Amino acid sequence: MKKIILSLMALVTVSAAYAQFGGRGQGNPTVPSVTENVTEDFKPALNNQSGHQYPMVNSQRMVRAQISAPNATSVGLDIDGKIYSMTKNENGVWTGTSAPQDEGFHYYQLNIDGASVPDPGSLYYYGASRWGSGIEVPSGDQDFWQVKNVPQGTMNEVYYWSSVTEAMRHCYIYFPNEYYTNTTKKFPVLYLMHGMGENEHGWAEQGHTAQIMDNLIAEKKAVPFIIVIDCLDARAAQPAQPAAPQGGQRQGGFGGFGGGFGMGGAFQDVLIKDIIPMVEKNYRVIADPQHRAMAGLSMGGMTTHSVTLANPTTFAYVGMFSGGTFNTGELENNDDFKKTNKVLFMSCGGKENMGVMEAAENLKKIGINATGYISEGTAHEWHTWRRSLYQFVQLCFK
Amino acid sequence: MKKIILSLMALVTVSAAYAQFGGRGQGNPTVPSVTENVTEDFKPALNNQSGHQYPMVNSQRMVRAQISAPNATSVGLDIDGKIYSMTKNENGVWTGTSAPQDEGFHYYQLNIDGASVPDPGSLYYYGASRWGSGIEVPSGDQDFWQVKNVPQGTMNEVYYWSSVTEAMRHCYIYFPNEYYTNTTKKFPVLYLMHGMGENEHGWAEQGHTAQIMDNLIAEKKAVPFIIVIDCLDARAAQPAQPAAPQGGQRQGGFGGFGGGFGMGGAFQDVLIKDIIPMVEKNYRVIADPQHRAMAGLSMGGMTTHSVTLANPTTFAYVGMFSGGTFNTGELENNDDFKKTNKVLFMSCGGKENMGVMEAAENLKKIGINATGYISEGTAHEWHTWRRSLYQFVQLCFK
Repeated sequence: MKKIILSLMALVTVSAAYAQFGGRGQGNPTVPSVTENVTEDFKPALNNQSGHQYPMVNSQRMVRAQISAPNATSVGLDIDGKIYSMTKNENGVWTGTSAPQDEGFHYYQLNIDGASVPDPGSLYYYGASRWGSGIEVPSGDQDFWQVKNVPQGTMNEVYYWSSVTEAMRHCYIYFPNEYYTNTTKKFPVLYLMHGMGENEHGWAEQGHTAQIMDNLIAEKKAVPFIIVIDCLDARAAQPAQPAAPQGGQRQGGFGGFGGGFGMGGAFQDVLIKDIIPMVEKNYRVIADPQHRAMAGLSMGGMTTHSVTLANPTTFAYVGMFSGGTFNTGELENNDDFKKTNKVLFMSCGGKENMGVMEAAENLKKIGINATGYISEGTAHEWHTWRRSLYQFVQLCFK
Repeated sequence: MKKIILSLMALVTVSAAYAQFGGRGQGNPTVPSVTENVTEDFKPALNNQSGHQYPMVNSQRMVRAQISAPNATSVGLDIDGKIYSMTKNENGVWTGTSAPQDEGFHYYQLNIDGASVPDPGSLYYYGASRWGSGIEVPSGDQDFWQVKNVPQGTMNEVYYWSSVTEAMRHCYIYFPNEYYTNTTKKFPVLYLMHGMGENEHGWAEQGHTAQIMDNLIAEKKAVPFIIVIDCLDARAAQPAQPAAPQGGQRQGGFGGFGGGFGMGGAFQDVLIKDIIPMVEKNYRVIADPQHRAMAGLSMGGMTTHSVTLANPTTFAYVGMFSGGTFNTGELENNDDFKKTNKVLFMSCGGKENMGVMEAAENLKKIGINATGYISEGTAHEWHTWRRSLYQFVQLCFK
């Protein structure tokens, strides 16, 4: 019962954070564009479409959007749970500026006369239950996920047959550079999960998993291992549609708690019966619990919690990023888990309050090698999770 | 001189075709939505975002778009060089229907009160010099590029250092399933190029290269080989931006004839000095001309033309898809090319007029193993190129 209450608490926290995502559209309050005390040093965002000046970000981390819509009567910048009213110039070009945003990556959209649409200036990402705009607000530590001239791994798109959903599924698999240069070596594997309203594209794209790993391996701060990035949606394919007609983008999209989502349910079946056997059969993998890790963000962290509890001898390394905590009651008499586990990592943003540091202290007292980590200055968003991955993978398989 | 004139003719043809792409926005004529003789059997497009009913396509291959924009005064569906006026219902939802489209994939966008934006219902692709909407109009032969339960290769994202541009570059590399199951075997390589206003994402995503190859290999119609999909843009990275901050989507975008594009110029340098050596060093590749192919679509076909002429002993298999033709004058005394070449493939859509069949007949007379192919009923678009790839790869490395 205590466990259920704690899970529900985590769910409420995660859901509240989720509701802030840009682009829920309906219900977000409209506020005036920020015009006072604005430092006019705006630069194009790092992740604009090629050749696009807008959106921009200034040194105060304000976001400025611009779009030509000569016949529109109202245009807004929808970010961080607010719609900032934009203003039109004599050429029909609308411009608006948001309040300062947290460091890191944010989903957003534009609203043109009541239509919520992606900004044609930005690149597009899957999050907030849609493909849409995202903006990179520069952070002091963003160097760790940049593409650098170090030995490169690859981020691979893989389709595989799922016996559970009776359909082809799509995942990403990261191979470190050494997978190609040392062709007889076998590697450990991390199974890494996304959050609510997201899918497997998250860690591969906005998460910059390959860059984080390549850079850490080059600095000898992480050992080389494989990372499998799958999708929590375990619904069977819709009969009306091919399972996954895209080579690159996957049809799917997992938008909430409905359908085949299962914290310990349908997805657990897919992971244990389909994904892990597929990976261990097809690739050079060390197929034992001491070389297997599972981690996830938000709902993916909650799923990691439930799956590793239900399969206590399967994963030696466990990470929950903004997904709540393990508590001592769950683990103190769980000899299987305690004997298998080597690292239990729990993190959240400094603007979240998930009690990860206290939980880690309590778990240490019952003999768990627990670590807490707080991402300073960030909330329930991707920069928290990039930093969490950066910390967690340095603890794995050592 | 003749060669220059022919190249210019090809350029004009390609440019004219390119101008038809949806979403040039300015200049496309506005026409009424189609309302007469419309068969009301519309179904969601195969490549809609998950859970989205619109856009739809009917059995006449008409496209119907819909968007909620309660305060808008005009909304249009911008596809195939026309903007179809949409009409508003009492709930502020706009709907519009296009004339019948060719089978296959088309770029498009919506226009809301003068703003050209992606449709929030579609998936997004790089083409027409932007990330934006694309729609799959069902074709009678689309089975060949579907994801099927056959042995799967992988489509891999790779970054590498370019000595020519002095920056990291991004490409895709397709490995056939056998690359993983037969870990000592070496494979041939096809270098496959995109068209104007596109980049390396084209063949990986809307081109469905991995699915086309996996399915053909499973049917034993193609031999397993590696495909390297790079970007024609050979401009050095802008100093103001990181070379490629995305893990998944690449910043780039190649929008026209300016910058570092080179038919035999800057890109040729990148290909010969950086890409081929990188691939032959890092992967299990048979590194000789008889196991090397180059092909491309539209401008990528024209680049294939110029690069293989300038490097006549480097590639045994050559393919030009909607990119013009080789002529006998270029090859009849070119002993290096004739001695090296095993297959010269030229194709175009049935709605293009590029003289590929005649060119093939003429080239055969001078001893070239030339093949012409026409994609019936399609124009300068992706279904022509998917079909061309399907034909070409069956001729390679046999």
